[in-house]
Amino acid sequence: MNAPAVIRGGVDAGQWRSLAESLFAELHKRTSDGLGITRECYAEGEEAALALFRETAERHGLVCSSDRAANLIVALPDDDLSKPGLILGSHADSVPHGGNFDGGAGVIAGLLCMIRLAGERRSAAAPVRLLILRGEESAYYGRANIGSRALFGLLLPSDLDAKRSGSGRTLREALQAAGADVAAIGEGAALMPLGFAAAYLELHIEQGPVMVARDLSTAIVTGIRGNLRHRRVVCRGEAGHSGTVPRWLRRDAVFAVSDLLMRLDEHWNRLLERGIDLVVTSGVCSTDPERQAISRIPGEVYFSFEVRSQSFETLEGFYELFRSECRAVSDLRHVTFEFDERIYTEPAKMDEAIINRLKTLSGQLGYPIELLPSGAGHDAAVFANAGVPSGMIFVRNRNGSHNPDESMAIDDFMRGVELMYAFAAAGL
Amino acid sequence: MNAPAVIRGGVDAGQWRSLAESLFAELHKRTSDGLGITRECYAEGEEAALALFRETAERHGLVCSSDRAANLIVALPDDDLSKPGLILGSHADSVPHGGNFDGGAGVIAGLLCMIRLAGERRSAAAPVRLLILRGEESAYYGRANIGSRALFGLLLPSDLDAKRSGSGRTLREALQAAGADVAAIGEGAALMPLGFAAAYLELHIEQGPVMVARDLSTAIVTGIRGNLRHRRVVCRGEAGHSGTVPRWLRRDAVFAVSDLLMRLDEHWNRLLERGIDLVVTSGVCSTDPERQAISRIPGEVYFSFEVRSQSFETLEGFYELFRSECRAVSDLRHVTFEFDERIYTEPAKMDEAIINRLKTLSGQLGYPIELLPSGAGHDAAVFANAGVPSGMIFVRNRNGSHNPDESMAIDDFMRGVELMYAFAAAGL
Repeated sequence: MNAPAVIRGGVDAGQWRSLAESLFAELHKRTSDGLGITRECYAEGEEAALALFRETAERHGLVCSSDRAANLIVALPDDDLSKPGLILGSHADSVPHGGNFDGGAGVIAGLLCMIRLAGERRSAAAPVRLLILRGEESAYYGRANIGSRALFGLLLPSDLDAKRSGSGRTLREALQAAGADVAAIGEGAALMPLGFAAAYLELHIEQGPVMVARDLSTAIVTGIRGNLRHRRVVCRGEAGHSGTVPRWLRRDAVFAVSDLLMRLDEHWNRLLERGIDLVVTSGVCSTDPERQAISRIPGEVYFSFEVRSQSFETLEGFYELFRSECRAVSDLRHVTFEFDERIYTEPAKMDEAIINRLKTLSGQLGYPIELLPSGAGHDAAVFANAGVPSGMIFVRNRNGSHNPDESMAIDDFMRGVELMYAFAAAGL
Repeated sequence: MNAPAVIRGGVDAGQWRSLAESLFAELHKRTSDGLGITRECYAEGEEAALALFRETAERHGLVCSSDRAANLIVALPDDDLSKPGLILGSHADSVPHGGNFDGGAGVIAGLLCMIRLAGERRSAAAPVRLLILRGEESAYYGRANIGSRALFGLLLPSDLDAKRSGSGRTLREALQAAGADVAAIGEGAALMPLGFAAAYLELHIEQGPVMVARDLSTAIVTGIRGNLRHRRVVCRGEAGHSGTVPRWLRRDAVFAVSDLLMRLDEHWNRLLERGIDLVVTSGVCSTDPERQAISRIPGEVYFSFEVRSQSFETLEGFYELFRSECRAVSDLRHVTFEFDERIYTEPAKMDEAIINRLKTLSGQLGYPIELLPSGAGHDAAVFANAGVPSGMIFVRNRNGSHNPDESMAIDDFMRGVELMYAFAAAGL
């Protein structure tokens, strides 16, 4: 590693920025896979990232320890971890062939804040800690937020039995090898001491295109969208010769599903006009490849349905609209709809007081005072739904995430870090 | 064969009907494939059907000969084939695992009429002939109406080179083996002597559901729908995370294609209200199976487009609407559309005078005087577009065609035969 300068006794903006740059460069170097970066949870890539974070923290006088779920805690030297504190957090792992910033930016932001707090020999009356979480991505074991869920006793035995895709290693074995208390996790015990986390704050790159489109360097997250899904809905009509069946006798599944989606699109539009947070997607939509033909009226279409919102009420309300429009289209177009299991992922609200403080601080720093929902999931949702007041700072990023093209400007990042530091330094 | 009675000197209704029933039974028996019937053109099944028709015709004093395209001509004994005549026609072949009536009903109807005309020793001042056509179905060589197209010099050299699906046998070889004048066909020569066909009349089962729905035993065909098609149109938007991209930044290909189809549906509805003949189908419509996911905004949808109408102007007009709505959807939803080759199949109008005579005769017989378009193609379209005044009689049939479940009641069929006979007996 091209060792960055050690920062002590206050911070020089240039030094701080250069530490950030060298940390990103080193993180990329240590976890590169040739295409992008790969930090497989409870495996080599994530371990390499954790080692870099630990080295860096310790070189700056911070104290590292593992929690019972094998996450890494970085604390100030005078913090005995007994008092409720502000937890700065993000995750060390990545998807395969991912980008350097998803998770990495949040961890490095927290580390920079901790280093600056340590340099300022801040007293630990209201401790600030960095929690470097593991296993946030669902790419390897099919379950997201493994490290944070384990802390709140939210992993199921079936999650522990899940095998890593492409190998026989179970999540149980992986956690055990990493030093986690697998027995307690299996019993659903909460591994984080009650009161350890008074609040949780996470910085993350935006994974959507809004901040680029709206020219925002930083934004404050209002909540994390949950979703209601069907993996597969089947619309059944009746196949027939495309030339011989007149419109009034058709039961065309493609026209029926198109009709349904346009009805949902209209509802969506109207709800957006009322300021309601909502996105609707049918990512999979197809006639039957075995039976489709240009001159055949499609008798069957299968499609996926997903609605996402920060509000449970919106999810349920829109889902009811969806089912009711399915009934209306059934009546009008003489088709039927069959639904597989409905899958629910809980939304999470960020804490009002934290949002308000981040708004005030953004104003003081001359940053945009802009609120955004998070469409992707984050560990902050787990903390928030476990009752820990939580907040998130988004930093502008191009090209989405989960790919090597993630692109975050260091200027934008440093603004996010300044905002996080201002929040942490002010105390809870 | 359970030999049917030979009918001579007039016809007894019971005998006529029983001849029809035994012919259908024997045709089914000789060409059954266990599931349905298979009468492959220029091969065993079609040959078996032709042999039955020839035997039956000759037993009733009719004279059989092959034309230069290997179709079978059945004539009255005093017909030297030199004068223009009324051609009763239909086809002997079927799709694989098809039904007994598609083609078969028209041939047997013509045969019954010829037998009755022969029995009545009708003079041949205006000759009536039965033309049993071959290769009407496109199932084997990818080209429909082989027998009738050959008669008018309408087969392309590329058609002759087409290989039977699943074997190396070319259509050229098949036609040659059947005795057709392949050299002349290859030169695009018209094989039917000019003036041989003064008019063409074909009885066929309806292949759609309209006559069952409207309780019509027989109907008079107004025209045969042509079509304009694209096998594959690609709508390209932009893929993205289904949670993180708000509606205003989406370029969702599924919503775009749904929007397009609903616009076309509305135009279709309005045009139908104005009495315009039109059907619209997108038989193939799919997100990309390699890249689709529930949580991925679909960046690409491919779909087929087909519009059918009896009117060329309607086809062109609706096609223009289609392209113009593609442009509107492109603008609104920020997608693009890419079109493959546009494929055109010409519509055909049935002759006004023949339609009017069939209407008058239907009225006299106490049958419905109902007009219907034909959505499927027929040899009658080839004759009509070659300038031969043509007509078609439809007979009610359940369950569509090209499947073993075709279902035509013998009562309905005999009404169709009576109508055809009345037309033939009246002379041109």
